[in-house]
Amino acid sequence: MSGSVYGNIFKIATWGESHGKGLGVVIDGCPAGILLGEEDIQKDMDRRRPGSTRYGTKRQEGDTVEILSGVFEGRTTGTPISLVLYNQDQRSRDYSDIQHIYRPGHADMGFDNKYGFRDYRGGGRSSGRETAARVAAGAVAKKLLSELGISVNAYTLSIGGVRAENKDLEECKKNPLYMPDSSAAEKAALLLEKAMSECDSLGGVVECVIKGLPIGIGEPVFDKLDSSIAKAVMSIGAVKGIEFGDGFDAALSKGSVNNDGFYMKDGKIKKHTNHSGGVLGGFSDGADVIFRAAFKPTPSISKIQKTITNTGESTEIVIKGRHDPIVVPRAVVVVEAMAAVTLADLILMNMSARIDNIKKFYS
Amino acid sequence: MSGSVYGNIFKIATWGESHGKGLGVVIDGCPAGILLGEEDIQKDMDRRRPGSTRYGTKRQEGDTVEILSGVFEGRTTGTPISLVLYNQDQRSRDYSDIQHIYRPGHADMGFDNKYGFRDYRGGGRSSGRETAARVAAGAVAKKLLSELGISVNAYTLSIGGVRAENKDLEECKKNPLYMPDSSAAEKAALLLEKAMSECDSLGGVVECVIKGLPIGIGEPVFDKLDSSIAKAVMSIGAVKGIEFGDGFDAALSKGSVNNDGFYMKDGKIKKHTNHSGGVLGGFSDGADVIFRAAFKPTPSISKIQKTITNTGESTEIVIKGRHDPIVVPRAVVVVEAMAAVTLADLILMNMSARIDNIKKFYS
Amino acid sequence: MSGSVYGNIFKIATWGESHGKGLGVVIDGCPAGILLGEEDIQKDMDRRRPGSTRYGTKRQEGDTVEILSGVFEGRTTGTPISLVLYNQDQRSRDYSDIQHIYRPGHADMGFDNKYGFRDYRGGGRSSGRETAARVAAGAVAKKLLSELGISVNAYTLSIGGVRAENKDLEECKKNPLYMPDSSAAEKAALLLEKAMSECDSLGGVVECVIKGLPIGIGEPVFDKLDSSIAKAVMSIGAVKGIEFGDGFDAALSKGSVNNDGFYMKDGKIKKHTNHSGGVLGGFSDGADVIFRAAFKPTPSISKIQKTITNTGESTEIVIKGRHDPIVVPRAVVVVEAMAAVTLADLILMNMSARIDNIKKFYS
Amino acid sequence: MSGSVYGNIFKIATWGESHGKGLGVVIDGCPAGILLGEEDIQKDMDRRRPGSTRYGTKRQEGDTVEILSGVFEGRTTGTPISLVLYNQDQRSRDYSDIQHIYRPGHADMGFDNKYGFRDYRGGGRSSGRETAARVAAGAVAKKLLSELGISVNAYTLSIGGVRAENKDLEECKKNPLYMPDSSAAEKAALLLEKAMSECDSLGGVVECVIKGLPIGIGEPVFDKLDSSIAKAVMSIGAVKGIEFGDGFDAALSKGSVNNDGFYMKDGKIKKHTNHSGGVLGGFSDGADVIFRAAFKPTPSISKIQKTITNTGESTEIVIKGRHDPIVVPRAVVVVEAMAAVTLADLILMNMSARIDNIKKFYS
Repeated sequence: MSGSVYGNIFKIATWGESHGKGLGVVIDGCPAGILLGEEDIQKDMDRRRPGSTRYGTKRQEGDTVEILSGVFEGRTTGTPISLVLYNQDQRSRDYSDIQHIYRPGHADMGFDNKYGFRDYRGGGRSSGRETAARVAAGAVAKKLLSELGISVNAYTLSIGGVRAENKDLEECKKNPLYMPDSSAAEKAALLLEKAMSECDSLGGVVECVIKGLPIGIGEPVFDKLDSSIAKAVMSIGAVKGIEFGDGFDAALSKGSVNNDGFYMKDGKIKKHTNHSGGVLGGFSDGADVIFRAAFKPTPSISKIQKTITNTGESTEIVIKGRHDPIVVPRAVVVVEAMAAVTLADLILMNMSARIDNIKKFYS
Repeated sequence: MSGSVYGNIFKIATWGESHGKGLGVVIDGCPAGILLGEEDIQKDMDRRRPGSTRYGTKRQEGDTVEILSGVFEGRTTGTPISLVLYNQDQRSRDYSDIQHIYRPGHADMGFDNKYGFRDYRGGGRSSGRETAARVAAGAVAKKLLSELGISVNAYTLSIGGVRAENKDLEECKKNPLYMPDSSAAEKAALLLEKAMSECDSLGGVVECVIKGLPIGIGEPVFDKLDSSIAKAVMSIGAVKGIEFGDGFDAALSKGSVNNDGFYMKDGKIKKHTNHSGGVLGGFSDGADVIFRAAFKPTPSISKIQKTITNTGESTEIVIKGRHDPIVVPRAVVVVEAMAAVTLADLILMNMSARIDNIKKFYS
Repeated sequence: MSGSVYGNIFKIATWGESHGKGLGVVIDGCPAGILLGEEDIQKDMDRRRPGSTRYGTKRQEGDTVEILSGVFEGRTTGTPISLVLYNQDQRSRDYSDIQHIYRPGHADMGFDNKYGFRDYRGGGRSSGRETAARVAAGAVAKKLLSELGISVNAYTLSIGGVRAENKDLEECKKNPLYMPDSSAAEKAALLLEKAMSECDSLGGVVECVIKGLPIGIGEPVFDKLDSSIAKAVMSIGAVKGIEFGDGFDAALSKGSVNNDGFYMKDGKIKKHTNHSGGVLGGFSDGADVIFRAAFKPTPSISKIQKTITNTGESTEIVIKGRHDPIVVPRAVVVVEAMAAVTLADLILMNMSARIDNIKKFYS
Repeated sequence: MSGSVYGNIFKIATWGESHGKGLGVVIDGCPAGILLGEEDIQKDMDRRRPGSTRYGTKRQEGDTVEILSGVFEGRTTGTPISLVLYNQDQRSRDYSDIQHIYRPGHADMGFDNKYGFRDYRGGGRSSGRETAARVAAGAVAKKLLSELGISVNAYTLSIGGVRAENKDLEECKKNPLYMPDSSAAEKAALLLEKAMSECDSLGGVVECVIKGLPIGIGEPVFDKLDSSIAKAVMSIGAVKGIEFGDGFDAALSKGSVNNDGFYMKDGKIKKHTNHSGGVLGGFSDGADVIFRAAFKPTPSISKIQKTITNTGESTEIVIKGRHDPIVVPRAVVVVEAMAAVTLADLILMNMSARIDNIKKFYS
């Protein structure tokens, strides 16, 4: 089935494997007239690119994006935008260590069972590298959103048990863990050093804040704002949970506390609190949309693990190579991308909600 | 936009408001030949029906399901199955208390802003009553799954801070909270009594276990098993979070712990642990699929709340009427339904994964 | 698979069989605020209703439409609109003549082969009665279109070899064949009488004219205006061909003749001719959209026909009962309906074409 | 909106403009395990390639296809297949003659009105060159179909008024017009020479025959076999009509003639005639599927034409450059491609029709 196409109006189709010729995305349904250059996309690609810090894989992925269609004289034309990222690092190497072995925590076993065989070079389609195409699409979606005054910003909320208390977006850029709290970042770095020295890996949580969304975005009862973002973000490899606003803590609360009271300010509807995380009944409620995604520890570790071969023999594996001891810092921009792509779609869907607005549009 | 249609092959379209003529669902893409009677569906409708316990609303919703099409001589025909539940309780009453007021924690405000006005009788389309149509669809999906030996069972994992430690599915049917642990159910009942006496409400967590799923179900990279269920379940009103397997706790774990090692047993691939919750790389991995959904406290409470009218005036509201002090026990079957509908779709999608199987099918 | 759901934003899901409990449609994605009553829909139902003339079946289908959801205080609310038509004529009769026999020109054989069995009462889902749900959906779409000044009108262009030369829409209502030419209608009536006396049936052509469509409607390269209408109209039972503008005659023309030259009139773009039928490159071009659909002769005839049983025995069949000697006059409103539903969808899709318009919409 | 994505399970997303960097397609949902090499696709690209005869444009398009993903060790992997065709002929030339002028019979005017501006180099996205991506996708679909013994063959049925009487597929390859009748091909060539000498162009009809399709393919009531192919084929630029079997002639027939009687032969269901063109009730009926598509004359002619500029000034245009005097011979493979892509999708959809088959599949 078609699992690599996402969206209804703003629609993306991603493709590519970690060690094939490249990766890319076709964006169909992007409105015409948006200023777009490769540099707009490259900016986000660079945030995802490995190798910049000691907490990211040492692989040189390159990730130079090229626009192949859909842009003319610096603006989107309304036709499909094709973006490609050629793999730089295709040198054929010996994959015999993983070719016949199912790595624990990986999709190898699932791929073989579903499709009968798999591209065993790196993770193939299930490699984290797949997210590069998502980030490219997200950068285009963000350009659309920025035209409407909507921003999407994510950051590392926690690594292992270390959680950012301060949330200073500027601070993120100053530490390699993309944490909005320098003191937490330092503690998390120590934790990571320890895990690395033990040939192990860590997980963490990404938090994302969306500002400027008009009230009423989301299409109940199935394509709600939160359910749509949930799918988009849960589809990122390694994400094991998502929550909006108070999330799982809301289950411990009371109605009288959890309900956000409304009031008016400067002619606009406001809420005294934001336990809802900006989503009520599946619609944006005017407050910031806030959600968190939990990432499991990187499954690729150099510790010995027990597993089986693809013929069912017991074996052990030590995964060599250049792997992130944590995916969270590099995943921050992927979370933003999936949220942005979803918002772009819902923003366009919302335009057909009312006949009075449609009449105005066509008059 | 089209927010009330869900699924790709097994596709449902729900409709109806809490105080209109009725609710229903059209199921398109259900395979032919499945034995299906109204009693198969009614069974689940009854689990959702209010009024059976003191922790559910006293409304008499009736919820008698009728099959209008798609079934002939006791079997599905492959054509759309139309199910209808006529509202019994349509007596016109006075809605002036909520007609012009935005209830905190409700979708009233969003509806007015998006559509220009709203059906203010009860919650209209955003009422919990909307889920009746989901349950009806879910019952049909479960029939399909049961033909393949797949079961979907959910239960109340926790209410407020009280969590079931024991997980005995038979126990669920014996207590009104649908908890699989009688001792926890008793404690939770006390907590609920207290909340009710304070005109307040509580939240909780539903856990769902899927057994018998073949390996490889799920369509990466976007329509994964977990991302698809996440959307389906997050689209249920009041759900604020979802997690699979260790979920948010995985973010606190290490790779060496979180990875589930593979082994063989009786010619089948097994895992020593199930931290993944049965999903790896977006595919089912052969272990039980386990996920949890967090529900916020019922927003309708009879405590005084500050809010505004639809013209922006400050006001207070006391929500009268028959409301659940907690939605969780009645939501259990809704969670099952949304999981079942999603699985039915993914099970059918998976059939086109391999050309060798397709050739066998058509030979 | 899901073959009974159609559309992207304005989406319909039809259901029902000819001799089951009823038929209906759920319309998802209809904008809020449109004035809509049952009488708006009934008007078109009555045009499709059989029994009014001697050229239509004598069955009493009733076809009284009921709105079950999505309308409040006389206006659409933006939530799904559920429409139902209960079958009046459900008396169980003896179907043993057709239960085991494959009627030539019918879907009986296909249904049995695809689904393993079929609802043999009447045509089941493949009965012409299925189109009642299309007409109901079309009536809602027309209300939307009329708010934007767009009209959709079809008529009987020809029956057998008799073709209307005059095209007076008022004339259609005056003759039972819905022909816009009284003289042609008289000749066609004679032809029909003759066919009926020979226990035979005739085919014909429906022509449809769409006025008031803005320039640029249609979504290349696949969801073009003409390709989308083609699918919608070809999905009506008995349609064997469709053409736009000069259609098949364009294949006999020359570029210098077939190209429509542009000019300006009152500040609007006009064309000297309309060989294109109002569609250029998949977009509406400002001229009237004109297309024609060819209908085969009614397959149900009371002449003796050779065929087989469902167990492969040779047999003969004489189809008794009340069948139209021609479907065309009653199909006119079905063609309008499918065109209207398609236009409603494309009109809403078009709103996201340009960022400048989107910015204006959200400012 | 998303007009460049097509299909439900076997899904394609095409991109690219005539004078941009290239064109391509992403195919999502292609089953794993199909032998596929670039040569399989190139074969069809070469059939579409211009320049081989005096009746095709002299442009050198190159059209060398490259597989960027989804194939590993010579077989499809089940992941998206990305195909790219880089444009060879990108030399910047002077477009001032068409930049501000609306060519009659072209999409220029529609593009400007819908999107606010357009890529005026060649036809941009509305160029016939866009069909190269369709052909590439079609070649992959044909490989899938050939595994199931299904063939799709089209040919030039007529050019202007000259129609092939003989239908010898081998003959097609021997004449530059791809006509299955050498004598008709000679007459058509003379007609074309005359048109060219008059700076004019001609239209024609393509006929397509599908063999080997199992009974029951097609998903009523909207995604029927014929309605789905109709959309696919009508979306090809220049197609103005499509008909199945007797098509428009069926409208002139009688039921007793048009109905195809069934009989058994060697245990298989056969029909005495094939007026239906292999489609009954939207399902394949076991006979060859036969349809015809009418192509208008190439709109680009070097005769003087009256038109307007994009600012509404009257002007004249003489279209220079290398244009086909007829698109039909090169469009033959495009028709095959769109039919093949549609069939691949419907073949996969059909697998979920019956629970007994599904149980067998999963057991």
